[in-house]
Amino acid sequence: MHHDTDRDLLPEGLGDRLPAQAAAAGRVRRAMTDAFASHGYARVETPTIEFEKSMASRMVGVKPRRMFRLVDPISLRTLSLRSDITVQIGRIAATSLAARPRPLRLCYCGQVLTIKGDGLDPTRERLQLGAELIGNDSVAAAAEIVALAIEALEAAGATGISIDFTLPDLVDTLAAEALPLPPSQIEAVRRELDAKDAGGLVDAGGQAYLPLLYAIGPFEDAIARLAAFDAGGALASRIAALREIAGRIGGRARVTLDPSERHGFEYQSWLGFTIYAAGVQGALGRGGTYRILGEAAEGEVATGFSLYPDRLIDLLSETTDEGASLFLPWGHDTETAARLRAIGWRTVAALSPEDDALTLGCSHQLTGAEAVPL
Amino acid sequence: MHHDTDRDLLPEGLGDRLPAQAAAAGRVRRAMTDAFASHGYARVETPTIEFEKSMASRMVGVKPRRMFRLVDPISLRTLSLRSDITVQIGRIAATSLAARPRPLRLCYCGQVLTIKGDGLDPTRERLQLGAELIGNDSVAAAAEIVALAIEALEAAGATGISIDFTLPDLVDTLAAEALPLPPSQIEAVRRELDAKDAGGLVDAGGQAYLPLLYAIGPFEDAIARLAAFDAGGALASRIAALREIAGRIGGRARVTLDPSERHGFEYQSWLGFTIYAAGVQGALGRGGTYRILGEAAEGEVATGFSLYPDRLIDLLSETTDEGASLFLPWGHDTETAARLRAIGWRTVAALSPEDDALTLGCSHQLTGAEAVPL
Repeated sequence: MHHDTDRDLLPEGLGDRLPAQAAAAGRVRRAMTDAFASHGYARVETPTIEFEKSMASRMVGVKPRRMFRLVDPISLRTLSLRSDITVQIGRIAATSLAARPRPLRLCYCGQVLTIKGDGLDPTRERLQLGAELIGNDSVAAAAEIVALAIEALEAAGATGISIDFTLPDLVDTLAAEALPLPPSQIEAVRRELDAKDAGGLVDAGGQAYLPLLYAIGPFEDAIARLAAFDAGGALASRIAALREIAGRIGGRARVTLDPSERHGFEYQSWLGFTIYAAGVQGALGRGGTYRILGEAAEGEVATGFSLYPDRLIDLLSETTDEGASLFLPWGHDTETAARLRAIGWRTVAALSPEDDALTLGCSHQLTGAEAVPL
Repeated sequence: MHHDTDRDLLPEGLGDRLPAQAAAAGRVRRAMTDAFASHGYARVETPTIEFEKSMASRMVGVKPRRMFRLVDPISLRTLSLRSDITVQIGRIAATSLAARPRPLRLCYCGQVLTIKGDGLDPTRERLQLGAELIGNDSVAAAAEIVALAIEALEAAGATGISIDFTLPDLVDTLAAEALPLPPSQIEAVRRELDAKDAGGLVDAGGQAYLPLLYAIGPFEDAIARLAAFDAGGALASRIAALREIAGRIGGRARVTLDPSERHGFEYQSWLGFTIYAAGVQGALGRGGTYRILGEAAEGEVATGFSLYPDRLIDLLSETTDEGASLFLPWGHDTETAARLRAIGWRTVAALSPEDDALTLGCSHQLTGAEAVPL
């Protein structure tokens, strides 16, 4: 969202979408929200700003210090600009919609802001869309959520989609019984696995965990290596779950496994995934199973994902034009024009006898009752 | 946008849209943006926050002190949350799109925020949609813009639409020649006319302007009285313009005239209008002709309108339900389900054999390959 804008006019990391990009953004939002709705996810809308305390108390793995903050002149309390809509969905599920039957399917679409960009990307405002299945974190829930993320991206025009799975609580699960670790070493082992540092892993006392560093890559091979490693069967249910979810994806996405990846999944429970598409640098989104935090519904389980399609929109806006449009000459018949709009034409009416179809970028001109190509 | 939310959880004047309201909001946004697009208005998208200085310098009649402000930790400059997207459209027209041919048709849809609500309405975040015709403030432009505002509201589901016209520069026009006033009295006459205070008007030396207080009401009568008053013909072109615009509206809206109304039209030039709908308290929006402010294109003329449909959305959400949905039993055929979604069904899949169609609020259940009503 930071193209074609005079850098002196706008703060760093904030920008406009001009017509081609805004048209692509509109198509992406519509395709994704239609996909969510078609699977029974009800849209909710949340405010742009909230009490900082309320947002921060529901966030794990999201840093409150990344949020823009300001003092509300009315309540004199500190407000934050939302940096993640998921926490607002959690609030709604735990309060206004606490009495609705579970599983509760909700979705959202809106702008989020952070003080600083992400790594090398200076962007500070992003479009976030997502779907949350609240009250269920089963394999069936995960399979539905993963399939929906893929379907939404496909509908939006993404190609070459790939999904990378991880098992966020892998080390905790293994350390509990199969490969015992003193509590003091668990964090170090987790860190070295995340860094994929074999030497560091051995130094941290995690020699027994070394094979996990090789259960990485294309799904079938990697899951077979993970299964071979899992002699005691501590991971058997997780492995079966991943196989079921991957089976549901079929050939619609390339699937990879990186079971010990933790970065970005600090608040997920048994499953996490990252989603990519061809031609789009970096991740388009991520998701998994988790627990909702907050006073009113401490610990309700949920499964969901968030997509940040700004870079997909940039890519799509390069390859699509603004479409056909029909020039309506000065003195045209307004009923004919209305009839043509009703069947899908985009019209551009002359405001004086001097207005000209080609100057205004029209592809067609109304002649009599016909749309004639120019 | 402030229904059904626990007041302690969210700051005053900020709220969620729960599913029924969010569905209505989605339909309204889509219907209106489709109407704009069908008339050749290209959507642009603007950032939620900008430099305060940049926004304030482009605003006339909008009070910068109503904007939420914060210091940008990166630039160390003061930022404002947008309170009006129109000024951002003006910036884009004057900079990134300065070289595009005129008339330039742009539209927008987004959330705006103010520190305080409006009068008795505490709402501090609102949905704003609008269309701007840049580079033209002719009668033809005004007629197109007024008709588009009506069409967008009709498409969104509004009924009983009415339009109230005003002539914002009426006093200046008359005072210049036909009914001369010393410059020191112009402001007082304008104020008393706006207040509809006959006694005050006489005291302010505006006795000659008294008949304007009676050229108010249903359009045909009011414009006839205005024409009768305009003996010298100073308003002849304005009267003809209003008659042409009202003629283009036909029977699609009730039309009224209040030629000396200034409140809310401080930055409009020859034409202003306010738009209402049945069952919706207060104005749904306003528009008119104006000049864009700002360094790069000082004074470019434009015609446009802004709609704030939150109350229309509240009204519509009371009278529409969330629609039909089809329960997919545990173990259903996924290809049949996909086929039914493709023809418009919203499906809700069982995540376990225990999930139940009625509990989940479904209207139909998939039985074999058929959607059977419950």
